[in-house]
Amino acid sequence: MTTDPPPGTYTMRPIGVIRSPYTETSQIPKGPGAEHHAEGVLELLPEYAAGLKDVEGFSHLYVLWVFHRATDYDLIATPPVDPRPHGVFSTRSPRRPNPIGLTVVRLLDRDANKLRVRGVDMLDGTPILDIKPYLSSISEEDLRRGWLAEAEERRRMEGSGK
Amino acid sequence: MTTDPPPGTYTMRPIGVIRSPYTETSQIPKGPGAEHHAEGVLELLPEYAAGLKDVEGFSHLYVLWVFHRATDYDLIATPPVDPRPHGVFSTRSPRRPNPIGLTVVRLLDRDANKLRVRGVDMLDGTPILDIKPYLSSISEEDLRRGWLAEAEERRRMEGSGK
Repeated sequence: MTTDPPPGTYTMRPIGVIRSPYTETSQIPKGPGAEHHAEGVLELLPEYAAGLKDVEGFSHLYVLWVFHRATDYDLIATPPVDPRPHGVFSTRSPRRPNPIGLTVVRLLDRDANKLRVRGVDMLDGTPILDIKPYLSSISEEDLRRGWLAEAEERRRMEGSGK
Repeated sequence: MTTDPPPGTYTMRPIGVIRSPYTETSQIPKGPGAEHHAEGVLELLPEYAAGLKDVEGFSHLYVLWVFHRATDYDLIATPPVDPRPHGVFSTRSPRRPNPIGLTVVRLLDRDANKLRVRGVDMLDGTPILDIKPYLSSISEEDLRRGWLAEAEERRRMEGSGK
């Protein structure tokens, strides 16, 4: 039986999965100091492989994926790096109204429908929704990072015993 | 009657809409030289306004949205700036397997559930799926931009008559 999604909604169908060294969320480095050097593979379904033509020319890619273990959302989130609560849209919390994750990865190489990348922070088996080329950056001097910069500064002050 | 989405798919529900000066795609500047200075408003449904707490501290935001006028997808796309065809995942084409758009905007100010932003390249009425803080950039010297850099270089050469 064919079922229709509710009106005003959009149905997304994964184009592949992420192969990652992480099988539990507790293994994934978190917070502002976290460095994501882990390697993984973006494995597209074979029928989408043609859509990767010329992707090798880009050093970095955006990966859009699903927080597939998230079961609900909260409008207020308390990130691991800051005891103060923030609005979910000011955080990268997985518990979002639409559980879409966004990660910038470095492309290492491609083998047909598989992209080997560095910088994964997703669980093994995470569904991929889209891949896009990373084209330009906001310059660091233009960036303000709100509560996150404040939380980092507080940590630095505490660390230095002040 | 309640309907279930097909197994293995994810149903997304817009959290608001974008108010933009563009009512037709032909009005939106495109290509590598395109500058997106247009102002717009991200208007969240009132029930999601609490999720914006502390967003004012960030200078830039990622907006995830739906290419709601796209009706199908192509694995090979021919972008407006380059006569050569590229894989859809190497482009920003709206005709993608999952029609999700991604734009970085500068946050100008907030009024309750409305964020005034600069840098919109979406149509008026575009559904918003998610908003995330923009936390860090890839440095320009680390970036390689594949076919896009080549197309720009070809244009420069043609423009200078060489």
